[in-house]
Amino acid sequence: MLPSIAISLGDINGIGIQLALQNHKKISKVCNPIYCIDKTILNKATDNLNISIPKNFILSGKYKQTSIHPGKVKKDSGQFSYDSFLHAISLAQEKKVDAICTLPINKESWSKAGIHYVGHTDMLRDIFKKNAIMMLGCQEMFVALYTEHIPLKKVASSLSLKKLTKFLIDFTASIDSKKEPIAVLGLNPHAGDNGVLGDEENIIKKAINKAQKLTGETYHLLVPDIAFTPHVRKNYKYFCAMYHDQGLAPLKALYFEESINVSLNLPIKRTSVDHGTAFDIAYKKENIISNKSYINAIKEAIK
Amino acid sequence: MLPSIAISLGDINGIGIQLALQNHKKISKVCNPIYCIDKTILNKATDNLNISIPKNFILSGKYKQTSIHPGKVKKDSGQFSYDSFLHAISLAQEKKVDAICTLPINKESWSKAGIHYVGHTDMLRDIFKKNAIMMLGCQEMFVALYTEHIPLKKVASSLSLKKLTKFLIDFTASIDSKKEPIAVLGLNPHAGDNGVLGDEENIIKKAINKAQKLTGETYHLLVPDIAFTPHVRKNYKYFCAMYHDQGLAPLKALYFEESINVSLNLPIKRTSVDHGTAFDIAYKKENIISNKSYINAIKEAIK
Repeated sequence: MLPSIAISLGDINGIGIQLALQNHKKISKVCNPIYCIDKTILNKATDNLNISIPKNFILSGKYKQTSIHPGKVKKDSGQFSYDSFLHAISLAQEKKVDAICTLPINKESWSKAGIHYVGHTDMLRDIFKKNAIMMLGCQEMFVALYTEHIPLKKVASSLSLKKLTKFLIDFTASIDSKKEPIAVLGLNPHAGDNGVLGDEENIIKKAINKAQKLTGETYHLLVPDIAFTPHVRKNYKYFCAMYHDQGLAPLKALYFEESINVSLNLPIKRTSVDHGTAFDIAYKKENIISNKSYINAIKEAIK
Repeated sequence: MLPSIAISLGDINGIGIQLALQNHKKISKVCNPIYCIDKTILNKATDNLNISIPKNFILSGKYKQTSIHPGKVKKDSGQFSYDSFLHAISLAQEKKVDAICTLPINKESWSKAGIHYVGHTDMLRDIFKKNAIMMLGCQEMFVALYTEHIPLKKVASSLSLKKLTKFLIDFTASIDSKKEPIAVLGLNPHAGDNGVLGDEENIIKKAINKAQKLTGETYHLLVPDIAFTPHVRKNYKYFCAMYHDQGLAPLKALYFEESINVSLNLPIKRTSVDHGTAFDIAYKKENIISNKSYINAIKEAIK
């Protein structure tokens, strides 16, 4: 039997619903998708898109109604995307699906609806009271983030031996293939250049040693701006970045279209596209939406 | 007449001398290279490399002698690379050359020789008492760094309206082509997300406004991890990064081999390869050194 995947539709004013509709046939070959939307909202969206509802498009959940305002930040659409995600989570908790795959939400719409999470991962962390690890990437490389959505000025002080060691151990336990060593990026330019450009690499080295002893895996401390050059990155599949842009700017420079977002270290499996709601092209007839990230997110969910 | 370029050889225990010898014929077609090395040191290097000295290999300067210790950090080689650079600078100051192109030094060797500059750019800044701007890149894109070799924890507090405005104005005055808007990266993840993830973008916005009024150019504040994705980067040639790895990790992920380093905002023109001494492959017969960065650095120097 094909695995069942709950799909939360994300912000109904964005491109999520179009992605779901246009790729239903394709993903149905590898999984049984269950869409967290109801008939009324779906009808409004398909009317606006002028797309008919595909065969065997299974819906789940009851939702507060929302109108469609293509590309607009709205309280109602924020509430719907939250409820759709919450319903997907409940399906996973009740073992009615094997994993969930999420389409992009809009943070401002969440805020308007009184939902104050920074995003999906943050919400999962709160619901499961577990330190979910955010990892983005594709088959060529994955980047896990030690710190995520915090101001840059708080990154250095967020580095602690205890937290980083736990992060490395949790991360290592969450990934399958450990054929290659795991790359761990330094914090400072040139990884501190022996302390001349910062000394936080001492913490990173200690955390690596501790994790190495506990997991038996090999970790390599890399110079951040060299880590993603072709000759170096070919030696690694998994990279641990100390902060958001350190890992995601090179990843997205190299593999933006195909990358996905995976939440690790949780009782449920969740994957996501790595792009946003793309309000600028939502519900426009002439738009061409790359489905690479969505298809890859589904593939990762069914693994 | 072809432009004259002074070439400093960098650390004699690294790959610089081999690059210079093997590419002499090629670069002589576009410039008159003047090598900042003397006959005795050159002979030692060519003996070790088993390469004969090319025709019309013009030397300049007198140097304290140094032995060759392939791939080793040595006081003498540190001193030589410093002297070679200093001589190249003096040739440019005396207008005996049109520009200088530098081969890589080793910072530890400089330190052993009692030279405490962080690198070439730092030394140029001190000699000319001008705030040299460090820019790396290639024809596809160039990245200028607002802060360079400082610990990450000091980056946010280094951002000031006055300094950034001056940086943008100086940078804009230093570059030729301003057909496209200039990309300026935010400091925080998602460029602060309207203040939720940091507020330094307010300073950046103000600096952009001031610079825009003074230079008449257009600057776009970009989200750091999106700036280098294919659809965004195609709109810009010049990027201003707030810190070292923010700009250089994506640049080197995309264009490591062909990138060069250019010092802007100085009375002399200086370009450099973007790689290091490559001690691991220096003086090894089987080594294949990519000359892309060196050739591009020469091409930029003669512009």
